[in-house]
Amino acid sequence: MSGKMKTAVVGATGYAGYELARLLFKHPCLQRPLLMSRENASEKSFADAYPQIAGIADSELTPFSWEKLKSEGVDLLFLSTPHEISREWLPIAIEKGLRVIDLSGAWRLQRPEYAKVYNLNGLTPEIESMCRQKAIYGLPELHRAKLAAAEVIANPGCYPTSIILALAPLVAAHVVDVSAGLICDSKSGVSGAGKQPTAKTHFVEVAENFQAYGVFNHRHTGEILEQLGLAAKDLVFTPHLLPIPRGILSTIYVKLEKPMKAAEVESCLREFYRESSFVRIFTPPRLPQIAFPLRTNFCDIGFALSPEGDRLVLVSCIDNLMKGAAGQALQNMNVMYGWPETTGLLN
Amino acid sequence: MSGKMKTAVVGATGYAGYELARLLFKHPCLQRPLLMSRENASEKSFADAYPQIAGIADSELTPFSWEKLKSEGVDLLFLSTPHEISREWLPIAIEKGLRVIDLSGAWRLQRPEYAKVYNLNGLTPEIESMCRQKAIYGLPELHRAKLAAAEVIANPGCYPTSIILALAPLVAAHVVDVSAGLICDSKSGVSGAGKQPTAKTHFVEVAENFQAYGVFNHRHTGEILEQLGLAAKDLVFTPHLLPIPRGILSTIYVKLEKPMKAAEVESCLREFYRESSFVRIFTPPRLPQIAFPLRTNFCDIGFALSPEGDRLVLVSCIDNLMKGAAGQALQNMNVMYGWPETTGLLN
Amino acid sequence: MSGKMKTAVVGATGYAGYELARLLFKHPCLQRPLLMSRENASEKSFADAYPQIAGIADSELTPFSWEKLKSEGVDLLFLSTPHEISREWLPIAIEKGLRVIDLSGAWRLQRPEYAKVYNLNGLTPEIESMCRQKAIYGLPELHRAKLAAAEVIANPGCYPTSIILALAPLVAAHVVDVSAGLICDSKSGVSGAGKQPTAKTHFVEVAENFQAYGVFNHRHTGEILEQLGLAAKDLVFTPHLLPIPRGILSTIYVKLEKPMKAAEVESCLREFYRESSFVRIFTPPRLPQIAFPLRTNFCDIGFALSPEGDRLVLVSCIDNLMKGAAGQALQNMNVMYGWPETTGLLN
Amino acid sequence: MSGKMKTAVVGATGYAGYELARLLFKHPCLQRPLLMSRENASEKSFADAYPQIAGIADSELTPFSWEKLKSEGVDLLFLSTPHEISREWLPIAIEKGLRVIDLSGAWRLQRPEYAKVYNLNGLTPEIESMCRQKAIYGLPELHRAKLAAAEVIANPGCYPTSIILALAPLVAAHVVDVSAGLICDSKSGVSGAGKQPTAKTHFVEVAENFQAYGVFNHRHTGEILEQLGLAAKDLVFTPHLLPIPRGILSTIYVKLEKPMKAAEVESCLREFYRESSFVRIFTPPRLPQIAFPLRTNFCDIGFALSPEGDRLVLVSCIDNLMKGAAGQALQNMNVMYGWPETTGLLN
Repeated sequence: MSGKMKTAVVGATGYAGYELARLLFKHPCLQRPLLMSRENASEKSFADAYPQIAGIADSELTPFSWEKLKSEGVDLLFLSTPHEISREWLPIAIEKGLRVIDLSGAWRLQRPEYAKVYNLNGLTPEIESMCRQKAIYGLPELHRAKLAAAEVIANPGCYPTSIILALAPLVAAHVVDVSAGLICDSKSGVSGAGKQPTAKTHFVEVAENFQAYGVFNHRHTGEILEQLGLAAKDLVFTPHLLPIPRGILSTIYVKLEKPMKAAEVESCLREFYRESSFVRIFTPPRLPQIAFPLRTNFCDIGFALSPEGDRLVLVSCIDNLMKGAAGQALQNMNVMYGWPETTGLLN
Repeated sequence: MSGKMKTAVVGATGYAGYELARLLFKHPCLQRPLLMSRENASEKSFADAYPQIAGIADSELTPFSWEKLKSEGVDLLFLSTPHEISREWLPIAIEKGLRVIDLSGAWRLQRPEYAKVYNLNGLTPEIESMCRQKAIYGLPELHRAKLAAAEVIANPGCYPTSIILALAPLVAAHVVDVSAGLICDSKSGVSGAGKQPTAKTHFVEVAENFQAYGVFNHRHTGEILEQLGLAAKDLVFTPHLLPIPRGILSTIYVKLEKPMKAAEVESCLREFYRESSFVRIFTPPRLPQIAFPLRTNFCDIGFALSPEGDRLVLVSCIDNLMKGAAGQALQNMNVMYGWPETTGLLN
Repeated sequence: MSGKMKTAVVGATGYAGYELARLLFKHPCLQRPLLMSRENASEKSFADAYPQIAGIADSELTPFSWEKLKSEGVDLLFLSTPHEISREWLPIAIEKGLRVIDLSGAWRLQRPEYAKVYNLNGLTPEIESMCRQKAIYGLPELHRAKLAAAEVIANPGCYPTSIILALAPLVAAHVVDVSAGLICDSKSGVSGAGKQPTAKTHFVEVAENFQAYGVFNHRHTGEILEQLGLAAKDLVFTPHLLPIPRGILSTIYVKLEKPMKAAEVESCLREFYRESSFVRIFTPPRLPQIAFPLRTNFCDIGFALSPEGDRLVLVSCIDNLMKGAAGQALQNMNVMYGWPETTGLLN
Repeated sequence: MSGKMKTAVVGATGYAGYELARLLFKHPCLQRPLLMSRENASEKSFADAYPQIAGIADSELTPFSWEKLKSEGVDLLFLSTPHEISREWLPIAIEKGLRVIDLSGAWRLQRPEYAKVYNLNGLTPEIESMCRQKAIYGLPELHRAKLAAAEVIANPGCYPTSIILALAPLVAAHVVDVSAGLICDSKSGVSGAGKQPTAKTHFVEVAENFQAYGVFNHRHTGEILEQLGLAAKDLVFTPHLLPIPRGILSTIYVKLEKPMKAAEVESCLREFYRESSFVRIFTPPRLPQIAFPLRTNFCDIGFALSPEGDRLVLVSCIDNLMKGAAGQALQNMNVMYGWPETTGLLN
């Protein structure tokens, strides 16, 4: 184990934290990860919290402390924590020389009008600014080059990942009539709402049901706008709650600047992701379904064109806990350390 | 029972047929309905096919014949049959002096370019034209007056019901910028796909999954266009398959001609449906969910407005087997015979 | 409305309370029920809490008070409350001359060794004894005669209802080899666990999962023993949690004293329930499924016999919120007031 | 790839076949498997049938032929085929010198009275007898030694795997009072019913439902009896259909010869499986749930004892497609070829 890197996960018993820990155990370039809980968890070991992992990858759960991180020689810290905690801890981690991948929303946004949904108070402007400058938005398909040298990676939100990946090639190619408005109708499984029991996540409220929520005020909106260079008025984003544990499907509606052929759209998408192993483009009329990327790090993208060729419906699917959280964090780590991007993510 | 009306249902063992028969048994103005099956069904009685109905409303299942309809003195015939059958049988039923409520798509459309998806061949142009003239589109909230005298009612499709009811008040008020395009993103439970087992309805394929289908070519599109007076190029309609047995939620995106206030939108909706017991309008920020109208004949409509007031997101929910099929058929019967519209539908 | 009876429900916003209120609104012999909440509920009306009821049966939600019960002229009080509350309030209600149907477990048990799971402390022995004597176990199929005159009805538990109804005819006929042990393997939907969000009822924990719980220590055990006259050592009761919102199926294994024929078993069951409209006996090989009694007050019972005829497997299904709670409470009210037992329960 | 072994799967597009192919692609000691379909499949490649596998492990789908098996140098043939096909093809495969792992029920049983449920007709008695002698029952935890040299492995059924593994240690230790009868109440996800769409597997029939089936006549009964050395009269086995895609939980009821302590039961189980990596024993009061072994090859076993210590309830969980089919087949291959048993099965 001597030469291998040491990682730690804070928040390993949440849904994304669990997936991340599971992936880290399997990764060939890593020592066993240090699994930490913020509160004094009732569980003593990872397998107490998740019996499914017993016999595969177990480990004690350690209460979080900066001392422990140091004494264990941790190189890379994953924060799978609420954004309030991530805001508070990132400056300390930077000061201690740790590299950080933060799965919360705390540091994903550059523009203050978007970032404010994650509570800007509490840090001095200097520290705020320093952190924000260091934090690179961790969508490797868009920012691969910058991520390799990053000290801090802000792991993207699940909804934005599904939407940005579908739209980026077309926006970059200037074929979208942005002024006509982009409609993103997204549907997510319940694990996206976190492990905390609430009325909204009660089985009886979710099963046999389906609902929209957060219309015109979901906090993921800023990420989509910022990454795609859109103005707030050009985007409508409507999340919905699916009665399934995991997975996101986004149906995205755009008007094209001028009519296109299906082959042109497909070619635009394929070209953009030529070097990206985790984006799978579907040839019409086949469309991706949530079941396809489930439990993988893929983002599956398909589309349909109106008969006139001027209206495009994109369908984009991910597993919200994988490409939408833990898998993407591992992919970011691979980029950060120069390992092949798919290491530990294809089995 | 002497003075009560006699009805018959063909296709009573399908999902919509079952709901319809169940409702007819409870209706205070009717004799026991005559339940008929087209094929020689293996089940001898309704409760053989649906044991849930035993002890509540049972009846034998009779093979279909025109003689039986006559000898039983049937006044009103419900066709819960494939559209090919409905096309073939309607002229015969008319000739025999029966009133008909047809739950298929066969006679919903007036314009040949839309109607052709239901196979126009097989009837003479004269008969085709006679039937089509008699068939009134059975959305009581829009066509109440004409339905009262109808000989033939073409019961609307499930998706169109959810979409047309949400849009009709706004389109009628000329507040929608139609040229900007209307986006209808609809999600339906599996019973909408019928009772026939297929790969698409296999539990393992549907559970934990979600998918779009029929983008730009779903045969319900014509109904929406025709009823709202839209051109094909102005509408994008994307149906999706939800992992639940029943229910539809449509999320509808429109650009307004000029900015509106939420109270104005709400007032436009409420005014339009002032006389309609089965439309429930939600005051923002509350939005309907599929669970709300489930197993009822209600259509629940809510909305959210963009901060600028120019983009409107409507959310419309129905039970696809009730307001989307059997419940609406019963409501149409009530209108046809001058009974209070809610008779037999509120318990 | 003058001549009609007045009822009140405390706990109307819980799952069973909602079903009960819904039923009371439809009951032809009743005034509108008074719906009360124990805590200062955030919802002002029933339809705020359950939008599905809007337009059907709405009512304000009133904070509970004895004065309000009196001023409204309430005759019959339904307690859909935790057993601690029911214990505390029953003596007061009796003193005030109210008749009570209690849906909790507080007063279902006569033998102290079973009753103690519902916290015997707090009442004087005299009051305890007085209440327990008045409280009749509300399974009409077994205790119809005594229930008619009851001041207090202890509405049975959901699991016991499904098990006792299946076994009572055979135990009464002395055909069961009790010494060989009775195995009751029960499976329940999640609404049985109540509306309070917990880790156990989180959608992600329940969906795609299934588990046993409370083996050898579930508090419903005492009811089954007491009603069937069994000793604790003769019964094994294992509840399981099904990933569905509602419904119970109990698979019950007994050894017969001597081999029987299927027709004899069926006849034993049918005779016992000849006068009981809400028990439906299935002829082998057909077995009931949870979907059959769902949203009804029926208990569906079927069985299979071993080739030798000495081992019997009974399958019993109910809707846990209907025959297992609210429906049974309404049935009990009907018995109590001499109305036909099915009044308000067959539609 | 030169030194690596070559495998083929017939029936790779079924649910078990898919899982098996997926595992074979990842196995470090194997060449890419040859994926074969019996019928002229409409899909040309594995990823056409299962888009989830694209980018991970794709391969063409080859129509089955003995010539192709030979020309590709296949060493080991997996038959994921209906038992009728497996019966017909095994003698041919043996003649051609192939080793075979058969996932069907065709060759699991030695005693003719049990084997007859798999249609004994069609082979000469000599061939029948030759095949049956060669076919070793592939439960490595019980027959590891014999499996290493097997030419033919009959991969166990899913229900029997969950039941036999729970009971074998106790039966072997002679602590079970067999004469009192063993009750096995098993619940399975829908993938156990296969990929063919039927009324029984239609989403609307399964969702929100639960049912028993095949009581006293399920064809897996023989395996349980034969492997545990029980007489038919001593076992009651009741399968049920869970509304989930995959997973089995068996609740097993036994009377003990004399009272035991929980620690003794646990020790009996742990000792028996000391060398078995894929059995996880739970310490009371914790019990396994279906979610724990899901998508793994583990069998999770827990238990509860009656207060008197004489009645034991065992709970055993597996993934029916993994330890109940494809995973077990891979484990058997590992045993057959002397590779560590967990190779290719822990990630």
